[in-house]
Amino acid sequence: MNQYEIAVIPGDGIGKEVVPAAIRVIDTLTDIHGGLSFKWTSFPWSCEYYLEHGAMMPEDGIQTLRNFDQIFLGAVGMPNLVPDHVSLWGLLIKIRREMQQSINVRPAKLLNGLASPLRDPEPFDLIVVRENSEGEYSEIGGRMHSGSDEMAIQSAVFTRKGTERAMRYAFDLAKKRRQHVTSATKSNGISHSMPFWDDVFKDVLKDYPDIATTSNHIDALAAFFVMKPHVFDVIVASNLFGDILTDLGGAIMGSIGIAPAANLNVERTLPSMFEPVHGSAPDIAGKGVANPLGQIWTGKLMLDFMGYEDLGKLLLDAIEHVLVSGIKTRDLGGRATTEDVTSAVIEYLKSCG
Amino acid sequence: MNQYEIAVIPGDGIGKEVVPAAIRVIDTLTDIHGGLSFKWTSFPWSCEYYLEHGAMMPEDGIQTLRNFDQIFLGAVGMPNLVPDHVSLWGLLIKIRREMQQSINVRPAKLLNGLASPLRDPEPFDLIVVRENSEGEYSEIGGRMHSGSDEMAIQSAVFTRKGTERAMRYAFDLAKKRRQHVTSATKSNGISHSMPFWDDVFKDVLKDYPDIATTSNHIDALAAFFVMKPHVFDVIVASNLFGDILTDLGGAIMGSIGIAPAANLNVERTLPSMFEPVHGSAPDIAGKGVANPLGQIWTGKLMLDFMGYEDLGKLLLDAIEHVLVSGIKTRDLGGRATTEDVTSAVIEYLKSCG
Ligand SMILES: CC(C)[C@H](C(=O)O)[C@@H](O)C(=O)O
Ligand SMILES: CC(C)[C@H](C(=O)O)[C@@H](O)C(=O)O
Repeated sequence: MNQYEIAVIPGDGIGKEVVPAAIRVIDTLTDIHGGLSFKWTSFPWSCEYYLEHGAMMPEDGIQTLRNFDQIFLGAVGMPNLVPDHVSLWGLLIKIRREMQQSINVRPAKLLNGLASPLRDPEPFDLIVVRENSEGEYSEIGGRMHSGSDEMAIQSAVFTRKGTERAMRYAFDLAKKRRQHVTSATKSNGISHSMPFWDDVFKDVLKDYPDIATTSNHIDALAAFFVMKPHVFDVIVASNLFGDILTDLGGAIMGSIGIAPAANLNVERTLPSMFEPVHGSAPDIAGKGVANPLGQIWTGKLMLDFMGYEDLGKLLLDAIEHVLVSGIKTRDLGGRATTEDVTSAVIEYLKSCG
Repeated sequence: MNQYEIAVIPGDGIGKEVVPAAIRVIDTLTDIHGGLSFKWTSFPWSCEYYLEHGAMMPEDGIQTLRNFDQIFLGAVGMPNLVPDHVSLWGLLIKIRREMQQSINVRPAKLLNGLASPLRDPEPFDLIVVRENSEGEYSEIGGRMHSGSDEMAIQSAVFTRKGTERAMRYAFDLAKKRRQHVTSATKSNGISHSMPFWDDVFKDVLKDYPDIATTSNHIDALAAFFVMKPHVFDVIVASNLFGDILTDLGGAIMGSIGIAPAANLNVERTLPSMFEPVHGSAPDIAGKGVANPLGQIWTGKLMLDFMGYEDLGKLLLDAIEHVLVSGIKTRDLGGRATTEDVTSAVIEYLKSCG
């Protein structure tokens, strides 16, 4: 029996509803299938915690998290209480950085039972590999002067190490999939970092002679997500471009409420973190109507990363089954509650044995 | 009779086909309606010009352009011949900067006769006001070290003047439309420039008490373009975010081949430049099959900016009429040539008298 220690950070808003739901689902799955179990330890780090303690997590928070195998996170942010750049840099982005979770992986797939907003899309199944540790998300910068002379400068930093790591991850992933990598660039407008990105891409692809490649500028690529998402297999993108493309990926699936994400420490020396793409949705929080499927799919990514791909597959099957059965929360046009959807997923898993 | 001097830069690829087409259309319109005429002076500045002369335009190119009322541009870029950051910074972006065309305006509208890739979209009619002179498109940055230590830094620069100018333009535009402005931000991830952007937005909106506002992070906003584009009226965005949103705008309309753009010198002390959103499309260049409607719609934006909004409206009517009649180029699923579409537009204009 393999027992894993999972740090749980429900965070803010609907995070506090969908995380417990997903945990029930995963526990059901491991109960049925044996061989592994998760010990979940919950931490209340959130905007509420900030209002009480003046920080999003205690000073030894990162130290505490190091003792866990993985981190399972809900959502962070309550912009009415704490400015986003404070809450997110104090928790979500802080963990990504300190745990060297340098790769963010997010799938987008046309699922049965989920109405895509696209007219008659061909089936698509793509994965965005997002550089998760540097790029446009940088602390470097500040403001100067005041009044009408005020200005702000923000520096994006791209290292060969970070860029190459994301690209190699993308190529290795493509090897196990449909052998194609698309690079998201903007070297026609952004004149230092993006030509550098292109150069690294050209260097890396030499090591993968069997993988076909394309480079698209981010503006065109965003348009292609709408016009022909089925042409993509693996897409490698900078931190910001990956952020934009993955929300778009959620949109074309039919809901950003359902898209999952993995923040991977690919060296496996520190815990990775799994979180849905959706935010804390303060407007619907506390009403029991949040869609738990994004958090459940996030659980699948955790299982996959830990080597339990057979169990991960069952979770995605269960999600698709429940969607097809029409048990849907509001965001998907249904009237089901978080509890209804969670129970339906659990029942399906039990029925499969 | 008002005579205007227009500098024409067909540029590369299909630019050389759609620009003459649009000029024929505009000349037809002014012939019919009298009161104004355009004198078009063509410049061969392009990637081919670069290969011959080592520069995208002559040294006194900008000086030459100053003598014109407006600039009518096709498309720039032949990445197989000249790297994009050379060709674009040497011509397109150079003109935007030197002519202080600090605002880029791009509409996206659900047109009759054009199949949107969205399933059953509600009619949408939005305008993206893009800051066009600074932000993420900056020359500031470079590379350091080599081999595995190599890195690139790119600094985005946001001034209050530039930011405020774009926002005020957006608010003034919203006053004449549906009284709503959306700000494209990313202050949850990008920690200096975007909180600054938000602060300026908060300051500016105080001067427009009748305009309703929303702020959306760019990732969510991109998703909303797919999920509910009808909720938007005017959107104000940074240079990069505006770039991405406007290609998306083209995509949801049903073609990026059709979207127009205006690079405005709002002070009207220097010429503005009008260019379609689409690129030079080297793959279909020279075959007579490029879609001229983007360039023609671009002509409408020029007429509007010059105060001939009644004529501008006729051009958009003509575009919609031809789309409804089914005379469509390949990119719209038809088999018509550039010439077929152009003639159809001209005939319609003549038939309206
Ligand atoms: C060609 C490129 C530099 C340009 C831009 O990004 O501004 C284009 O995409 C546009 O939107 O006009
Ligand atoms: C909340 C925000 C900082 C975050 C990001 O931009 O990385 C989110 O959008 C995401 O994609 O995980």
